[in-house]
Amino acid sequence: MVNSWVNSAERIGADLHLELSGGGGRRAALIRALRDAVRGGRLAPGTRLPPYRSLAADLGIARNTVADAYAELVAEGWLTARQGSGTRVAMGVPLGAPARVPRKAPPRARGPRHDLRQGTPDASAFPRAAWAASYRRALTQAPNEAFGPGDPAGRVELREALTEYLARARGVRTEPSRIVICSGFAHALRLLFHGRVLRGPLAVESYGLGFHRELLSAASVRTVPLPLDEDGARVDGLGRERAVLLTPAHQFPTGGPLHPVRRAAVVDWARARGGLILEDDYDGEFRYDRKPVGAVQGLDPERVVHIGSVSKSLSPALRLGWMVLPERFVDAVLEAKGEREAWASVPEQLALADFVISGAYDRHVRRMRQRYRARRDRLVAALATHAPHIEVTGIAAGLHAVLRLPPGTERSAVKAAVWRGVALDGLAEFRHPEATGDAPDGLVVGYATPPEHAYGAAVEALCGALPPS
Amino acid sequence: MVNSWVNSAERIGADLHLELSGGGGRRAALIRALRDAVRGGRLAPGTRLPPYRSLAADLGIARNTVADAYAELVAEGWLTARQGSGTRVAMGVPLGAPARVPRKAPPRARGPRHDLRQGTPDASAFPRAAWAASYRRALTQAPNEAFGPGDPAGRVELREALTEYLARARGVRTEPSRIVICSGFAHALRLLFHGRVLRGPLAVESYGLGFHRELLSAASVRTVPLPLDEDGARVDGLGRERAVLLTPAHQFPTGGPLHPVRRAAVVDWARARGGLILEDDYDGEFRYDRKPVGAVQGLDPERVVHIGSVSKSLSPALRLGWMVLPERFVDAVLEAKGEREAWASVPEQLALADFVISGAYDRHVRRMRQRYRARRDRLVAALATHAPHIEVTGIAAGLHAVLRLPPGTERSAVKAAVWRGVALDGLAEFRHPEATGDAPDGLVVGYATPPEHAYGAAVEALCGALPPS
Repeated sequence: MVNSWVNSAERIGADLHLELSGGGGRRAALIRALRDAVRGGRLAPGTRLPPYRSLAADLGIARNTVADAYAELVAEGWLTARQGSGTRVAMGVPLGAPARVPRKAPPRARGPRHDLRQGTPDASAFPRAAWAASYRRALTQAPNEAFGPGDPAGRVELREALTEYLARARGVRTEPSRIVICSGFAHALRLLFHGRVLRGPLAVESYGLGFHRELLSAASVRTVPLPLDEDGARVDGLGRERAVLLTPAHQFPTGGPLHPVRRAAVVDWARARGGLILEDDYDGEFRYDRKPVGAVQGLDPERVVHIGSVSKSLSPALRLGWMVLPERFVDAVLEAKGEREAWASVPEQLALADFVISGAYDRHVRRMRQRYRARRDRLVAALATHAPHIEVTGIAAGLHAVLRLPPGTERSAVKAAVWRGVALDGLAEFRHPEATGDAPDGLVVGYATPPEHAYGAAVEALCGALPPS
Repeated sequence: MVNSWVNSAERIGADLHLELSGGGGRRAALIRALRDAVRGGRLAPGTRLPPYRSLAADLGIARNTVADAYAELVAEGWLTARQGSGTRVAMGVPLGAPARVPRKAPPRARGPRHDLRQGTPDASAFPRAAWAASYRRALTQAPNEAFGPGDPAGRVELREALTEYLARARGVRTEPSRIVICSGFAHALRLLFHGRVLRGPLAVESYGLGFHRELLSAASVRTVPLPLDEDGARVDGLGRERAVLLTPAHQFPTGGPLHPVRRAAVVDWARARGGLILEDDYDGEFRYDRKPVGAVQGLDPERVVHIGSVSKSLSPALRLGWMVLPERFVDAVLEAKGEREAWASVPEQLALADFVISGAYDRHVRRMRQRYRARRDRLVAALATHAPHIEVTGIAAGLHAVLRLPPGTERSAVKAAVWRGVALDGLAEFRHPEATGDAPDGLVVGYATPPEHAYGAAVEALCGALPPS
């Protein structure tokens, strides 16, 4: 048994579960129960025992009986008592055989030396102080009902803050009543498809996250890949699918925005066929060189489900995302979510509302945008110096770039990178199994993941792994 | 959802269509629809509304939802309720507003005047300052990787803290590597059954939460009800089921602990048949008069999945729970959960670890135990004075009591309570549809929910609603 808080001086008034049974009176029974608890490991060495009064009240016995039992066990060496420190389990008590051999905690998988996998922001840049301040303010100001069962739509404070923020930052047109809070993009997909709000077949981009395809296929949703070209997904290939899942701001993972003509075309398709567009706005906040690309949702709010989260902008540790829905889907999504909020933490929903309203979210995004832009520039410069034959694409936005490789070299390049302690993925990893057309070789380089101090070494290691010209 | 019903004799001829739409759940949607119908003149002043049961059946929603909606509209002045005359549209309601208000954020659905529904702790007692302090400490001390993708088992800091706490307070024998963090009890059931870790049929107690039965049936798991008697579930009725779901510390909702002989018997059954016990320890911390009842898990950790959460002890707003698993199920549950933590907030996991380790959790539980015990005592005393013919049971532990009623009076008592602005459920609400044997009349009174200052009035209103002797 692992015990992380032995010797903690703060443990007062602790709960202790003991069963008093057997003969010889209560004092003897309590002594036996305490001995067993120590011997069995339930009371670890160093653990502070509850005060006499508390334990006596819990067990419905006299305080003196508890005091006597403690004294006896101190005398026997099971417990120690020191003024000001209470009564504790003695260190070095011989333990009996545990009920079973402890399952070893699996050795913590240490990460690779250089983590250039896409998908995660710099964990060392989480705005701890600002977030803690928002959380504390939110807790202080929350009405009491916030600590009761939650509205499955999510807190209205957050939905209001997001309505304003998404309009301003992403060109999303909505109202709080058409937003449903969720745990992230995958949860949104689950609600829509596992919750039977939508059915397949679903058109998808021919490159994307395998995890999403698996989640859809677990809901028996067939996905139909749309080819990609330099203008993004070939939405002219849309046919009888009921819906299409797109990453219009920054195609994942190839990196380009959906061309304005295609944006208009897909909305036309949705109108003509009664189709629906699922807009995965996974890193829409991070843009560097080009004009901001607003959400497709703004073109026709009744034809687009716009989905975002804080997983790239703040941290995937928070498990907060949102769906901006056409009105006709709101009830069905709420129905799929259940009668009460069962997922997203209410205090953190309120903290995010505060974080957005106070401007801290904008400040954090701005800061990270500068940091990631600088990283991208370093990557591009290093490649220009060390591997000028390698084209870098998809770099106008987001947290990753794509290095185009000579045909047939992707697999060996990924392998060479691993040898140098660099974790990253090749483009093949993201290709839809039924995709047709070009299958270019390339590496997807997530430049956001390493902490700031380790970034230079990661880029250097990467350059060493690239195929020669 | 469209409903059409022909009203009682007093309503001349017309059909009324109610459309339940918009956010905020069914109750809020029904309230909106009724308000619109009154405002638009479709429900004229003086019109008698259909009985809860009829409208609930027509709309396919819970009877309590209808009762709540009526109570709310009575409180708002749209409807009037008089004993013997049913619920009617109030005279003098201003007419002529548009049938459908532009869709704004739905007005915060106010609850009933006196909320005595079971299942929620006193939301006004959430330990805001202590929790905020734990959250801040956790954020400050967390390693950077805590803000990256999370381990689906949950943070090891929390699993260590729970290992110690559950051993001490609940007699649970485990190790951190056999704990998986989740969002609450329903999430645990989902992981086990929707995640195909376990299959049905599953034996359950003949009284329990309908929500859990629905969740299981959505995973095509058949539930087989076990009769209850004064010693708890009749586990001698277990046959070929693969698993049994029990609430051994405090049967939900009838209120008794599982008798020690039955505890041993169900473990014997699991050993003999290779069965599994799912232990729902939903309010194990709250016990008043009797000796603590430890977890069944302690009897045989390889035969029991022990499931708990902070939903009763702290707040359902946090979405944090845990599964203590037999070793052979750990990998399958993690597989069902996914490669990364997609649900429980990592910062709040760390905050809970700090909250437990610092002793704040024990202090809060102890404070709430005193408060709830006092409330229970007030309830029992009020009943002894005002309704001495009503037996109160299930009061030695937990956050609710059961008032036994004369046969055939439950339904009218629930209705009488609603008339007095008291929301609560009858026992029938919790009965398994295939249950056989006695179906006693009773009211489930959740005494934890109202804020402290409102509790006296709630008990008074309840007493006024009870059937005369």
